[in-house]
Amino acid sequence: MKKSYSSPNPGDRIQVSLDNNKKEEGILLESHDKGVLLLKLDNGYNIGLKKESIEEIKVIKNEIGSEIKVSEEVNNKLKLSGKKPIIDFIITGGTISSRLDPKTGGVKDLTDANEFFKTYPEIFEKADVRIKSPFMKWSENMDFKDWARIAKEVEKSLKDDNVKGVIISHGTDFLHYTSAALSFMLGKLNKPVVLTYSQRSSDRGSSDARLNLLCSAEMALSDVAEVMLVGHATENDDYCYALQGNKCRKMHSSKRDAFRPINCKAFAKVWANGGREDKGNIEFLRKDYNKRNKGKVELDNVFDERVALIKFYPGQNFEILDYYRKKGYRGIIIEMSGLGHVISSGKNSWIPKLKEIIKKGMFVYAVPQTLYGRLDPYVYESGRRLQEAGVVYLGDILPETGFVKLGWVLGHKVWRGSVATAQKMKENVSGEFNKRLGNEFLN
Amino acid sequence: MKKSYSSPNPGDRIQVSLDNNKKEEGILLESHDKGVLLLKLDNGYNIGLKKESIEEIKVIKNEIGSEIKVSEEVNNKLKLSGKKPIIDFIITGGTISSRLDPKTGGVKDLTDANEFFKTYPEIFEKADVRIKSPFMKWSENMDFKDWARIAKEVEKSLKDDNVKGVIISHGTDFLHYTSAALSFMLGKLNKPVVLTYSQRSSDRGSSDARLNLLCSAEMALSDVAEVMLVGHATENDDYCYALQGNKCRKMHSSKRDAFRPINCKAFAKVWANGGREDKGNIEFLRKDYNKRNKGKVELDNVFDERVALIKFYPGQNFEILDYYRKKGYRGIIIEMSGLGHVISSGKNSWIPKLKEIIKKGMFVYAVPQTLYGRLDPYVYESGRRLQEAGVVYLGDILPETGFVKLGWVLGHKVWRGSVATAQKMKENVSGEFNKRLGNEFLN
Repeated sequence: MKKSYSSPNPGDRIQVSLDNNKKEEGILLESHDKGVLLLKLDNGYNIGLKKESIEEIKVIKNEIGSEIKVSEEVNNKLKLSGKKPIIDFIITGGTISSRLDPKTGGVKDLTDANEFFKTYPEIFEKADVRIKSPFMKWSENMDFKDWARIAKEVEKSLKDDNVKGVIISHGTDFLHYTSAALSFMLGKLNKPVVLTYSQRSSDRGSSDARLNLLCSAEMALSDVAEVMLVGHATENDDYCYALQGNKCRKMHSSKRDAFRPINCKAFAKVWANGGREDKGNIEFLRKDYNKRNKGKVELDNVFDERVALIKFYPGQNFEILDYYRKKGYRGIIIEMSGLGHVISSGKNSWIPKLKEIIKKGMFVYAVPQTLYGRLDPYVYESGRRLQEAGVVYLGDILPETGFVKLGWVLGHKVWRGSVATAQKMKENVSGEFNKRLGNEFLN
Repeated sequence: MKKSYSSPNPGDRIQVSLDNNKKEEGILLESHDKGVLLLKLDNGYNIGLKKESIEEIKVIKNEIGSEIKVSEEVNNKLKLSGKKPIIDFIITGGTISSRLDPKTGGVKDLTDANEFFKTYPEIFEKADVRIKSPFMKWSENMDFKDWARIAKEVEKSLKDDNVKGVIISHGTDFLHYTSAALSFMLGKLNKPVVLTYSQRSSDRGSSDARLNLLCSAEMALSDVAEVMLVGHATENDDYCYALQGNKCRKMHSSKRDAFRPINCKAFAKVWANGGREDKGNIEFLRKDYNKRNKGKVELDNVFDERVALIKFYPGQNFEILDYYRKKGYRGIIIEMSGLGHVISSGKNSWIPKLKEIIKKGMFVYAVPQTLYGRLDPYVYESGRRLQEAGVVYLGDILPETGFVKLGWVLGHKVWRGSVATAQKMKENVSGEFNKRLGNEFLN
C-alpha cells in the first residue's frame, strides 16, 4: 500500500504502520521533536514514534479538534461589506463539510473553509458571513459536551448586536439531538438559530447542500427566534422546511428530505433566491413561533450524562433497570408502546421493578416508540398502574427530545427533587409538547 | 370504595382488600374450597384467602389464560353452512376484543365470543367462521412463546383442507413483532394468514374494528399466501391496507391508520362489501407475493430469547455491550444511525468493545434507527471499521423484524456458527429485505 495521505494534521486520527510490522492507531498530537510523531492512543496514553521507523501513515479520520482553516481568500471575502446583515456560520463537521475522497471512494472532511465557501459562494450574496469552527466531528461522535460548546458559541454570536442570525452546519445522523439540546440550552432566544446539513457531499452534482444553505440564510435573516432545522422538504431541489428543532427527526437514511416534523407542522416552507417568483421566499405554516426581539439570550448549557434511553421490546427482561441503577444512572427514558405500556402482568412484569428503582431515587419517564401520536396512561389499567408505580408520562414528546431534556433538567441542582424534576419534565419549556395534534403524518 | 366487579373469573388479575387493611394482588385460580379464594402472586407463590376476611375485590385485568367462552348462540352460528368458505379466527386479545368498562372508564376484555360476534355479525356473510382463542393478552405482555403458540394454531388451521384462510385478532402495540415472527415461523405458506386489530374498542361508534375485520376476511379468502397485517389505510373509514407482516410498524399511538408500510408498498388496498362499487374489493399494489398453493406449510416456531435490541444514542456508554455478554446473551441488534454508525472515535469509541465481544462469540447486527431507508457501511470510514470489527449490516430491515429474526435464527442449532448465522441473517428469508427502495414515505 502507498501512503494514502501525504501530511496528516494534528487532530487527525491516523494509523501508522511501522517497520517491525506493527500498527498503531490514534490521534496525531503536535510534537516539538521534529523526528518524532506523537500519538494519543484510544486507551488514553500517548506514544512517540520515530519517524524513520514509519512505513506508512493512513489518515482514518480527520475530525477531532481540527479547527477548520480559514484561508486568505476566504478572509478577504469575510472583510465585512458593512452593507449586508451579518450571519455567524458555525461549522461542526458532517457531510455538508466533506467531499468525496477520490483515493478511497469514501468521504472526507473539507479541511479548509476556503473549499467550503468556494463550493457555496451564493451564501455571500445575501449576507456578510463570519465563520467559526469549534471542532469538526461526525454527529455520532458528538455528545452533550459538544452540544454545550455549540450552545456557548451561539450565545456569543447572539449577544453581538451586529449579528442578525446564526447558522450551524452539522452531520445528519444525530442532528436532531443537537437541535433539541440547543432548544433547551438557549433560553429567551432573541434571534434565529438555524441548523443545517447535507445528505450528499458538496462535490457531487446531486448535492442538496446548496439549497439547504441558501434556505438556512433566509431563515437566519427572518423574524423567527427559534432553534430550527432547515433542509429539503421534498425529494426535489425545490424548497426546504424550517422545522422545530425539538420536534423533528431523521426518518430516512439517505433521502434529501430525511428530516420530518413529528407531531407538529414545520414553521415554514422556504425557497431560495427567486424560487417562488415574487411571492417572497418564506411561506409560514404556523404562527406560534417566538419573534425576533431585543431581549438577551440566556445560556443554560448544563447536562447530567447519567441518563439512559431504553427502547422496550416484547419479552424484554426488566433487569436492565437494575443495571442502570447500579451504574449510578439518575434517570431513564423508556420508549414504551404508543399509549405507554410495558410488560404489566406475570412474573416478567416490569411494574414491581419500576416501583422499586423509582423508590430508590431513579427518575423514569415514558415516551412513545410509535414516534407519532401521544401517550395516554388512562385508557388501560396497565397505564394507570405504571403511573401509580411512579412512571411519569411525557405526552407526545419525541424519545430523542425526552432523553436530551432529562439530561438537561438533571443538570440543574435546583430541579433534582423528584417533584421538581417531574414538574420541569412536564412543563412545556421550549414547545416540545404539542397540545393539539392534527394530521401528524401529512407534513 | 365499592366493589367494582361482582364476580371475577379464574385467570383474572385481581386486587383483594382484606379486613386487616392489607391488600393482595395476583391471578385468581380455581379453588375447590368454596370458602377460600386462591390467588397466584407475582412472586410465583399461591395463597388462600378466606372469603369472610375479604372486604373488596378489584379486577385489575382479566386476561391471563382466560379462554374466550363460546356461547350457544355463537355455536349455532358456527354450525357450518357448508356453502361458504371456512375462515379460522384466532382471538388473542387486545382492543379489538375489548369494550369500554362503564365502571372505570377504561377498557376491559370481551370475555365471551358471543359478544365479539354479536358486535361483528357481518363477518358471517362471507364465510363460515370457526373460533379459537389460545389466550387473551394485551400485546405488551406477549413474548416469543406466544408467537410460537399462535404459529402452532395457524399451522393446524392451514393443514385443514377445509380452511381457506386464517385471521388473528391481536392487540396493536406490538402486533408488528408477532406478524414478523409468524413470517419466519410459518415456512412454505400455502394460504393467507391475516393479522388484524382495532384502535378503538368495538362498542364505540367510532370503532375501526368493523372495516378491519371485513377487509381481513377479503384477504383471508384471497390468493395471497403471505403473513399480512390488515387495517385502515387512512383516517377515514374507507379502505384498508394489506401490509407485509415483517415490513410494517405501528407508527402512531392512536390513529386508525397507525400501521404503515416501511421500505415497501402494501400488497393491496382492500375495501369492504361493495365499498369500491363493482371494481372488486382488492386493488393490488404489488405483484411479488406468494400465491395460494397446494403445498404444505412448515412450522418452524423456535426462538432463542437470549437476544437484545439496543437503540444507540449519542454519548451512550459501550459498557451496555458487556452487560448483555455477561448476562449470557448470544446476539444483539443495534439501532445505529441511518447509514449505520455508532461512536467510532475517541475514548468512548464502541469499535474496540464490539470487536472484543464479537470475538468472544456475540453476534452483533446493525439496523437503521431512521426506520426508513437502508444502511450503507461503505460511505464512511466508520462503517467500514465497524464491519471489520465483525458487525453485520442488515440493509433496510426494520429493527423490530431484525430482533425477531435473530431470535428465530439462533433458535436453530444448525445456524449457530458465526458464518451460518450471518448468512441466514443476510438471506432474504421472507421478504424482510427490499432490494429496490422507492418512495418510502409515500405509502
